[in-house]
Amino acid sequence: MQTGALSLPEIPAIDQRPREALRAKVDGKAKPPGSLGRIEDLAIRLGLIQGTTEPRAQRATLLVFAGDHGLTEEGVSAYPQTVTAAMVRTFLAGRGTANAFARAVGAELRVVDAGVASDLPVHPDLIDRKIRRGTRNAARGPAMTAGELEAALSAGAELAAEVGADVIVLGEMGIGNTASASLLMHRLLPAALDTCIGAGAGHDPAGLARKRDALARAAGRTDATTPLEVLVEFGGYEIAMMAGAILGAASRRRAVLVDGFIVSAAALAAIRLDPAVRDYCIFAHCSAERGHAALLEGIAADPLLDLGLRLGEGTGGLLALPLLRAACGLLNEVASLDEVLSGAV
Amino acid sequence: MQTGALSLPEIPAIDQRPREALRAKVDGKAKPPGSLGRIEDLAIRLGLIQGTTEPRAQRATLLVFAGDHGLTEEGVSAYPQTVTAAMVRTFLAGRGTANAFARAVGAELRVVDAGVASDLPVHPDLIDRKIRRGTRNAARGPAMTAGELEAALSAGAELAAEVGADVIVLGEMGIGNTASASLLMHRLLPAALDTCIGAGAGHDPAGLARKRDALARAAGRTDATTPLEVLVEFGGYEIAMMAGAILGAASRRRAVLVDGFIVSAAALAAIRLDPAVRDYCIFAHCSAERGHAALLEGIAADPLLDLGLRLGEGTGGLLALPLLRAACGLLNEVASLDEVLSGAV
Repeated sequence: MQTGALSLPEIPAIDQRPREALRAKVDGKAKPPGSLGRIEDLAIRLGLIQGTTEPRAQRATLLVFAGDHGLTEEGVSAYPQTVTAAMVRTFLAGRGTANAFARAVGAELRVVDAGVASDLPVHPDLIDRKIRRGTRNAARGPAMTAGELEAALSAGAELAAEVGADVIVLGEMGIGNTASASLLMHRLLPAALDTCIGAGAGHDPAGLARKRDALARAAGRTDATTPLEVLVEFGGYEIAMMAGAILGAASRRRAVLVDGFIVSAAALAAIRLDPAVRDYCIFAHCSAERGHAALLEGIAADPLLDLGLRLGEGTGGLLALPLLRAACGLLNEVASLDEVLSGAV
Repeated sequence: MQTGALSLPEIPAIDQRPREALRAKVDGKAKPPGSLGRIEDLAIRLGLIQGTTEPRAQRATLLVFAGDHGLTEEGVSAYPQTVTAAMVRTFLAGRGTANAFARAVGAELRVVDAGVASDLPVHPDLIDRKIRRGTRNAARGPAMTAGELEAALSAGAELAAEVGADVIVLGEMGIGNTASASLLMHRLLPAALDTCIGAGAGHDPAGLARKRDALARAAGRTDATTPLEVLVEFGGYEIAMMAGAILGAASRRRAVLVDGFIVSAAALAAIRLDPAVRDYCIFAHCSAERGHAALLEGIAADPLLDLGLRLGEGTGGLLALPLLRAACGLLNEVASLDEVLSGAV
């Protein structure tokens, strides 16, 4: 494929110099050193990402990228393709799980049509970046063209750079997208295809066998291993757009909360495109979807939560958001031990 | 000891009849069945606790119970006793970690003086239930009298019953209170004393040896095993008052978010006083304090978070609160699959 025209956002390497100041600030707080465990690490990471000892996580936006997959023709999902659009409408009505969780934690939610296979209503919370009405069937040929990939990556990068938030949470909706994510993991991690395949939204043994067979045919079609080639071959539009969004967010030094298996596959692609984005990704949770734990391990990600979630939509990312806010509160609001012992509080 | 006069609150057994309706409601939501893992379980638990298919967790109050411990005379803590009062003043100034975390998740915070060894200022956020200026030294004799225990349990039960919140989060501050908690765990779980002792707020090897020695002397003084006797022998006031608060909250069918090692020891005491309270306790996290994992296992508690926290103050409980709100959001706000598929959303 030709990728000469593709210009990816420049990702600034994390400036490590504030690390000592951040560590000293955390250690100087009115609490035993180390007693906040991973919240302390998060505070330091957010400070490094934002380049400040006073990081913020108050304003958070969940972008739910939606797209359809030609692979569904092969029966890789237990749900019909029309469910993608039905769920987008549910999000726009404020009635999805992602909406409820966003309200519970105080985050804004926007839906991005990356490639849903139906017409969607005009709505203030829907961002139309539809590349095409669903990818092509990856079991038979490339899921998308190089031009479509480029458009998806660019749209994602632009969207993330435009969002006026301290933290971007990524989520997705797309019947069949665990199938694409499994293929991406298989080639980009890399890992044996079988260990990358799980039940997705749910499968009986026959359904799972059908999924395995379709993915084996898709993988057997091509020996692509570079991130751009692999995204073209296996899709999907929403995954490519999320990879772009991760690049765009990192280019603006913005933390990205990575949700479950599919967003992690997008993060894997983004990391393979530019390893510097890794430092901007905060992995929210370990999903119950088979393959996710190995994917996370493969990119040395230690997720914050382990709650047996496997829904997607950004729900796990949202549940980790309060931890980031607590980490900022520690840095910005908690008295130092000196203040407490000197009676200055 | 005489306990004839003690009247503990009546704890209603959980009515299990709504379980099927709750399960059906969760399963009927617009998501693959089971795909929200532990959040689904939480939704059902909260519904059962509150006796409704529309539970609430919006209004949450953190009660931080503070008390001092005569055991500190034995050098069981690396910090001087005066730190307890200094931290209470820090909470009242809104500058403690618990304050920052409470703001981050949207919870109210009140401090309860259960037995701080200093005079504390009058403050609208401070509830004065001081039993005495610190417990007696449990290495030499009982930490408190039976009358003091009764007063502490009653005060806690009253406070929890009076709090106008959907969820009560319990936290504590008390130099030396991991020592009391270890002794309670040892006798009430029961478990070998050594496995119950950790570094608390921090200890060098000599400090830890001193703590082990003091606790061995305290344990060697008495063979008490009933919860009331054990609380009298080992204290402390804030732990007994939290045990009372758990009983009081459960008596009003209110969920209690249990924080770390010390609150869990209070929960253990409450459970031994009345096993029916167990169903009202939601265990927020597994602390890094040695002993906590075994304590949780001993009461079949599967904590929601594991973040390496060991601060106390209710900080871990606060971080779990958004999970409860998400669980309520799932039940109360998310469309059913029927609504989505019929286009009714």
